[in-house]
Amino acid sequence: MENEDNNMNDSNSNYSDNDEESSNNNNEYFESYFDLNVHDVMLKDTTRTLAYRKAIEENVIDFKDKIVMDVGAGTGILSMFAAKCGAAKVYAIEASQMAPFTKSLVKANHLDHIITVVHKRVEDIDESDIPQGKVDVIISEWMGFYLLHESMLESVLDARDRWLKPNGILFPTKGDIKIAPVNLEQLMHERVGHWSDVYGFDFSIFKDMSMHLLQSQPLIEYLKGDTVISEPKDIIEIDFTKVTKEELRDIVVKNIPFSIDDERCTLIHGFAIWFNCYFVGSNSTVRLDTAPGMPYTHWKQTTILLPDVIDVRGAGQIEINIDMKQDEINPRFYELSLSFPDDDDQDENANEDQ
Amino acid sequence: MENEDNNMNDSNSNYSDNDEESSNNNNEYFESYFDLNVHDVMLKDTTRTLAYRKAIEENVIDFKDKIVMDVGAGTGILSMFAAKCGAAKVYAIEASQMAPFTKSLVKANHLDHIITVVHKRVEDIDESDIPQGKVDVIISEWMGFYLLHESMLESVLDARDRWLKPNGILFPTKGDIKIAPVNLEQLMHERVGHWSDVYGFDFSIFKDMSMHLLQSQPLIEYLKGDTVISEPKDIIEIDFTKVTKEELRDIVVKNIPFSIDDERCTLIHGFAIWFNCYFVGSNSTVRLDTAPGMPYTHWKQTTILLPDVIDVRGAGQIEINIDMKQDEINPRFYELSLSFPDDDDQDENANEDQ
Repeated sequence: MENEDNNMNDSNSNYSDNDEESSNNNNEYFESYFDLNVHDVMLKDTTRTLAYRKAIEENVIDFKDKIVMDVGAGTGILSMFAAKCGAAKVYAIEASQMAPFTKSLVKANHLDHIITVVHKRVEDIDESDIPQGKVDVIISEWMGFYLLHESMLESVLDARDRWLKPNGILFPTKGDIKIAPVNLEQLMHERVGHWSDVYGFDFSIFKDMSMHLLQSQPLIEYLKGDTVISEPKDIIEIDFTKVTKEELRDIVVKNIPFSIDDERCTLIHGFAIWFNCYFVGSNSTVRLDTAPGMPYTHWKQTTILLPDVIDVRGAGQIEINIDMKQDEINPRFYELSLSFPDDDDQDENANEDQ
Repeated sequence: MENEDNNMNDSNSNYSDNDEESSNNNNEYFESYFDLNVHDVMLKDTTRTLAYRKAIEENVIDFKDKIVMDVGAGTGILSMFAAKCGAAKVYAIEASQMAPFTKSLVKANHLDHIITVVHKRVEDIDESDIPQGKVDVIISEWMGFYLLHESMLESVLDARDRWLKPNGILFPTKGDIKIAPVNLEQLMHERVGHWSDVYGFDFSIFKDMSMHLLQSQPLIEYLKGDTVISEPKDIIEIDFTKVTKEELRDIVVKNIPFSIDDERCTLIHGFAIWFNCYFVGSNSTVRLDTAPGMPYTHWKQTTILLPDVIDVRGAGQIEINIDMKQDEINPRFYELSLSFPDDDDQDENANEDQ
């Protein structure tokens, strides 16, 4: 067996935890490196990155000769897409230690006459950073799990209010959060049910423990399309060009109805939540769809598991209430609560993201 | 982007770190749970588990009506295999918080008249635990990465010296550690080379950083069979029935030669290390082989990457020295050093497992 250090080299981000001496020598280096791994994951999410590229390339008219701001630019890939499409000027705003590397990348790609990397939080930018005063376009990849986890959107809204020209373009422009009941028999078998038969022995005593842990947090897993067993419904549609931070503090939707088709629906293990984003350009609208069964993204889907599997055969319709409440102490987190209207006084399930 | 909490629900073991309040309420529960996840990985390693079952089933003669000790029994799966093959008595020694669960599993499988779970470190067992005084067979799954990482073997050797009858059976009985040069072009492209072209842009400045981190620790990766580009050689053969702890403190082998076939060998990125274990029974010998290209095990292979890729075309033969030295402060770790005989005075590469 190898019951510790199992991830000895699986996660580079653990390096600095594991080797203090080396870490002290390389603190800055590995702080940068940690960022790099994150950005590597982002860049390798081709569904995500190519949606941005498509949105920019299909709407060259919105970028050509325009002033662009990229909020949370990271490696600067979106800024480079914009520059290649003829932007007159791109401000790549990046607060992390990635920024000096972003500068080097911009230079290495001979785009430093167009792209200016600003090593600041977007909230701290002033007129000296953006001499033009306002920008024509803001692009940003700020989305978290189920859209709102991480809440980087708030920075984008700040940037929008301070720096975007009236009728300027915001990419992504709008989005919606979807929810649907899911049947997770296969996943449940792999994670829980397999304990029934372990090489011919009965290990069922571990089922409750496995299930308890599985239910203790939202499940971030990529689900196949056929796990969704009723038409997805909107929790909310958000127009990023207009929405306020306050409107996102506590999103409560009651009595979302799902029709039950007895041919398809039998058991419901939980409700999956995901999002779409739309890039509404002058020429075309591009959609980034993170639904189950759509091309994989690192956002996967977020599933709230029910405490008990429910059998909905013959139910005709079921309704749920959902509450997505921003955490007051750590606004980067949301508390997701799901309940059935009949039991309105008590939550059927509540998961706080950690 | 979702640049933190990326593994929000990927690793159950993080739960107790992330949710202090819940952790305090469930400390014991989740301490157990953490173990469960580890054992789940072990049990799902079918190559590993089925090798033990095959070794026991093909050598029923060694187990029938015999007294068996299972050192570090975990869930007790090996003890159950032995019991099913007719062992008169099995002592399942388990020091961790898994032990009470192991007892429940044994009972659930109606094997509690045969298997006695002893919740102790094997070093702390005394005659009151093993009334027979000595056992006919010791089984244990103690192997770590490249066999010796984790060094649980020392506990097995203690058990052997104190509890195994003369000429008793020890499973596994012997093992060897193999080494071979490997070409990792594909892996290097995925981890490092891809920075050359990121959606048409040049991100090469990240190559050195990626490579530095990749080389900073031994690489634990499952390698395909065709990555091995010269006949593997033994670093050491170990007879577990005879070896002493002292003999494993510092394993130094000089001038291990690898012949270079110009048709196959061009570039060497490093040297991969893995092991075989042999279960030598009265009826048959079963081998567990963790070589590149063999069925996947959670041990994968351990590769020491060279600081620079070397081109060995036309070399005819290359030689290396290897030093596997147990860490004095933390004997669970080994320091792996690899050098070329010509540069004997200085290590070409040294990796300390952390």
